Amino acid sequence: MSLVVVGSVAYDGVETPHGKIDRMLGGAATYIALAASYFTPVKIVAVVGDDFAQEDMDLLTSRDIDVEGVERVAGGKTFFWAGVYSADMNDRTTLRTDLNVFADFNPKLPEGYRSSPFLLLGNIQPALQRGVRGQMNGVKFTGGDTMNYWINDFRGELLETLKDWDFLLINDSEARLLSGEHNLRRATAKILEMGPKILVVKRGEYGAVLFTRDCHFMAPGYLLEDVFDPTGAGDCFAGGFMGYLAGRGIEPQSGNMDFSELRKAVIYGSVMGSFCCEKFGVDRFRTLTREEIEARYQEFKSCTAF
Amino acid sequence: MSLVVVGSVAYDGVETPHGKIDRMLGGAATYIALAASYFTPVKIVAVVGDDFAQEDMDLLTSRDIDVEGVERVAGGKTFFWAGVYSADMNDRTTLRTDLNVFADFNPKLPEGYRSSPFLLLGNIQPALQRGVRGQMNGVKFTGGDTMNYWINDFRGELLETLKDWDFLLINDSEARLLSGEHNLRRATAKILEMGPKILVVKRGEYGAVLFTRDCHFMAPGYLLEDVFDPTGAGDCFAGGFMGYLAGRGIEPQSGNMDFSELRKAVIYGSVMGSFCCEKFGVDRFRTLTREEIEARYQEFKSCTAF
Repeated sequence: MSLVVVGSVAYDGVETPHGKIDRMLGGAATYIALAASYFTPVKIVAVVGDDFAQEDMDLLTSRDIDVEGVERVAGGKTFFWAGVYSADMNDRTTLRTDLNVFADFNPKLPEGYRSSPFLLLGNIQPALQRGVRGQMNGVKFTGGDTMNYWINDFRGELLETLKDWDFLLINDSEARLLSGEHNLRRATAKILEMGPKILVVKRGEYGAVLFTRDCHFMAPGYLLEDVFDPTGAGDCFAGGFMGYLAGRGIEPQSGNMDFSELRKAVIYGSVMGSFCCEKFGVDRFRTLTREEIEARYQEFKSCTAF
Repeated sequence: MSLVVVGSVAYDGVETPHGKIDRMLGGAATYIALAASYFTPVKIVAVVGDDFAQEDMDLLTSRDIDVEGVERVAGGKTFFWAGVYSADMNDRTTLRTDLNVFADFNPKLPEGYRSSPFLLLGNIQPALQRGVRGQMNGVKFTGGDTMNYWINDFRGELLETLKDWDFLLINDSEARLLSGEHNLRRATAKILEMGPKILVVKRGEYGAVLFTRDCHFMAPGYLLEDVFDPTGAGDCFAGGFMGYLAGRGIEPQSGNMDFSELRKAVIYGSVMGSFCCEKFGVDRFRTLTREEIEARYQEFKSCTAF
């Protein structure tokens, strides 16, 4: 079933210990859409300037991503972000953030998007996220991301928005900030009372933990020999997770949303995040095949089963 | 098969966000021996002063731990350590280290210990570790722990010692320091060339990873709702891991050391580490049963299988 992805499409400048790229395709919605496209039809909603290159649009369409919802602002420039990673790549410093056309992003869904059953909201202002959901007809599964800034400064709006979500994806420090609890089990129990039925806490290189009210599932991070560029890994996790569920039509109302499918979705998310780190930016997705994805899924199994 | 455990038996003063204990039984060998005692007969080698309380010795013997190798120095005082944990318990500050009789610890194995097939060397001077191994007759499986201090300042001695080990247990920062590689897979590949056939890298709350030349296995950390006191958790991991293997007689020469048994040993180690954190010091081992251990082992399975 089709998945609508809303968020940033951007250009990134990235420096890691493995090299430096001044300008390349990036943005949360880009990574999410590319990762999800291996599992389900994807429709993307974003805004770019007229500097957005046709070859970058072509990469999206080469993965059969519907780009009707990518608004192009004449005379505007695409969101640009630049950052540099620490030697161990566990920290990064933002060097530049030019919001450009993204500053006025007010997502409008094309008619053909509105009946999609799956919606994944990238990390944007909570009220905008709510507005997008309001444009959908009969959405069956809403997931989304957020960040410290919205948790701290837009808390009321965020809590209002979360009430309608089926799935929230955050990292461990965000979970602690949102809940006010340091202990992860206590933190997640509190967050599950805010609305989302499914919570995934990303823990960077250490993997991710899935929580519902009754169960939890721990997935380790894949041990790569070379992490070239971690940019977008969390978004690729989101794309793999939601993409898998959408592809299988797994949502609460269908009655097939058992915990075993959610576990598999976490592993597919982890698989997509791991591939993302193997090359700069979105480069790994130029060649990645579904067969490679399945092979890594099996590798996860053999590294965790006992 | 019996397991000889060598290391510190101490008194600890510990402060965590959950409370403060001025003086309680501690020490690496104490934790290792208690954890291993659930799986196999244990013989402990350590030194204490004449301030060592009979009730603490009684706790060890109540778990059928052989204490013949615990030397009591008349007029001496037992090793004392005190520390305070940070609010999130991920860091601790040492407030006091009185080595006392431990400063001159020169482990001598009672005759009845020397033919034990399994040996676990706690974190002491590498030359002492080597000396202990030299006192054994036909030891079949040697494992041990080390720390930054020995890696930095006694590197040559440590490398000489590691050559004879089957199993090394270290944490991730120690693995990086020992190998000079940041990436964990590269780091562990280098360490496996130093001697040990089996390497376990502890990652604190994030679990542990087992490496051999051909395979690796990732175990997540158990998610406790309350971590009362993390002191000794790594030692309990060691005790559970080696205790399980010793109890099953699993060592390289027996031909039964397949990777699936090593995986199980990692989970038993993780289980014992998790119980350790549930109460102050060794208190959890006063009531812990083998049934509780098996139940948590199954819980690990249900939280990680997919």
